[in-house]
Amino acid sequence: MQALIIENGALVYRDNYPQPQPKSGAALIRVRLAGICSTDLEVVKGYGSFSGVLGHEFVGEVEAVGDPQDAAWIGQRVVGTINIGCNQCDECRHNGPEHCPNRAALGIHRADGVFADYVLLPIMNLLVVPPTVTDEQAVFTEPLAAAVRIRGQLLISPEAKTAVVGPGRLGLLVGQVLALAGTRVTLLGRRQASLALPAQLGLQTGLVADFDDNSFDFVVETTGNPAGFAHSLRLVRPQGTLVLKSTFAGDAHINLTKLVVSEINVVGSRCGPFAPALRLLEQQAVHVTETIEADFNLCNGLAAFEYAALPGVRKVLLRP
Amino acid sequence: MQALIIENGALVYRDNYPQPQPKSGAALIRVRLAGICSTDLEVVKGYGSFSGVLGHEFVGEVEAVGDPQDAAWIGQRVVGTINIGCNQCDECRHNGPEHCPNRAALGIHRADGVFADYVLLPIMNLLVVPPTVTDEQAVFTEPLAAAVRIRGQLLISPEAKTAVVGPGRLGLLVGQVLALAGTRVTLLGRRQASLALPAQLGLQTGLVADFDDNSFDFVVETTGNPAGFAHSLRLVRPQGTLVLKSTFAGDAHINLTKLVVSEINVVGSRCGPFAPALRLLEQQAVHVTETIEADFNLCNGLAAFEYAALPGVRKVLLRP
Repeated sequence: MQALIIENGALVYRDNYPQPQPKSGAALIRVRLAGICSTDLEVVKGYGSFSGVLGHEFVGEVEAVGDPQDAAWIGQRVVGTINIGCNQCDECRHNGPEHCPNRAALGIHRADGVFADYVLLPIMNLLVVPPTVTDEQAVFTEPLAAAVRIRGQLLISPEAKTAVVGPGRLGLLVGQVLALAGTRVTLLGRRQASLALPAQLGLQTGLVADFDDNSFDFVVETTGNPAGFAHSLRLVRPQGTLVLKSTFAGDAHINLTKLVVSEINVVGSRCGPFAPALRLLEQQAVHVTETIEADFNLCNGLAAFEYAALPGVRKVLLRP
Repeated sequence: MQALIIENGALVYRDNYPQPQPKSGAALIRVRLAGICSTDLEVVKGYGSFSGVLGHEFVGEVEAVGDPQDAAWIGQRVVGTINIGCNQCDECRHNGPEHCPNRAALGIHRADGVFADYVLLPIMNLLVVPPTVTDEQAVFTEPLAAAVRIRGQLLISPEAKTAVVGPGRLGLLVGQVLALAGTRVTLLGRRQASLALPAQLGLQTGLVADFDDNSFDFVVETTGNPAGFAHSLRLVRPQGTLVLKSTFAGDAHINLTKLVVSEINVVGSRCGPFAPALRLLEQQAVHVTETIEADFNLCNGLAAFEYAALPGVRKVLLRP
């Protein structure tokens, strides 16, 4: 089958990658549409030393299952959560696979991902996509769930002055989700051009440099780069909260003095719940397709990655 | 009067420093006993570019007041909170002076401190010391309040596996305060010798290097150095909480990858409430005098600072 893989540290396209076979507890899914996110770009740069098929944002159709009792899944249009737990440890049994110490992660760590014709995923990871949600919407379920995750971690007052640093592919989702509580959310970028789309989607916008220190009660950092972190820490008021929503590759220089003296609360935030994300898509409560910038055939995957890595480019899709 | 001051970036002893005069809203306090803490050592190294009389941990006696209606304070034995707010801003009016953007801080920022014969402090900063609390206990009110602060910031399950990194002057107070909830608290140090006193005070102890990654639900970092932070982040489990309880001078290299992927909650923690700390001292619920290593006359203050900076030395007192 076709696949976009990391092999010896490089991203390559292959049309003869071995197709996975159904196995017990799992479904073989034909990928209908997949999305490139910032974590994929980091993995290509070497984050996590991954090798195998890249990609974890997708919508697909179940073509086969490993166990007869799962036959009802065949033909279903599905999305899938990306953490594959061991199902043996206390963490898996009590809290789910997200923090299982032995977990694999789809297209990120020890599991072939979705930039391919087919992907194999445990049945327990699958959710059926409601019929009114298009493929172009459903492919956003995973990043939208990551945005929704913040709501499950923290009680945020709807009156909190809220900023999202980074008006990119993830920041736009986070900003919209937080605004659904009636919160006034300001999307902050470094360049005016990056603020056009958030403004068009009805969000407040601003340039990072135009805001004084300590301007916001609640700041979400979505850029994943140390400069974005430094800005976010600068912008959050004493006793405020800073959520880190994007994967950082490696270490960063952090001003711990402000963190302690101003008693800042910094919260790491990763994967979120798919069911609420699907409900938001079904309700059309969040604009997602507006962030699609390009749609490449999988065979042009290398060009798609080059495009997705350009500054200011938001969602790029891959179609097997 | 005598005073230990920072002058042109150096710590010096002077016996002719101008004595402060009572002014409206303030009390002139004769210092009975003062304590050296790690923040003082950082200020001497240049943290905050302070100049003036150093020191903020003290117990003293009010000798004069600026306003006749405050005359009842004269002769009282007192401790005093260290943040001096503007009393004008929203922060001061609603939440107190701790995060006032225009605040001074006793012996740390724009206010002469307590390593002197006399100190001037607003009446509103003063608390009377209960008669059964000795000077040698009362001088610990400020750092004990800082330990108590954690309880007001976070709900901590008494069943949380808890570690305090750094068995030093502050770590011992934090460990004892957290143990008062019935929590099993382990004091962690780098050297076996540093663990003798915490063990003697009835706390669990261990060497940092003997614990696996992710061993604790709740970790309090009290060393104030980047290596202590790195250890603390290593030791906290996914979705666990890390409290930064000590002043960090400047930037540090932080592994943001773990912070995000494991969804760690990092909380800065600074000054705490004095009244609960005084009640704990009155109840004799916390051992404090056991951590006193030396008691210097103020005129030997430079020697006291050299001694306090030695590895493993805990509380050093100054007596004017």
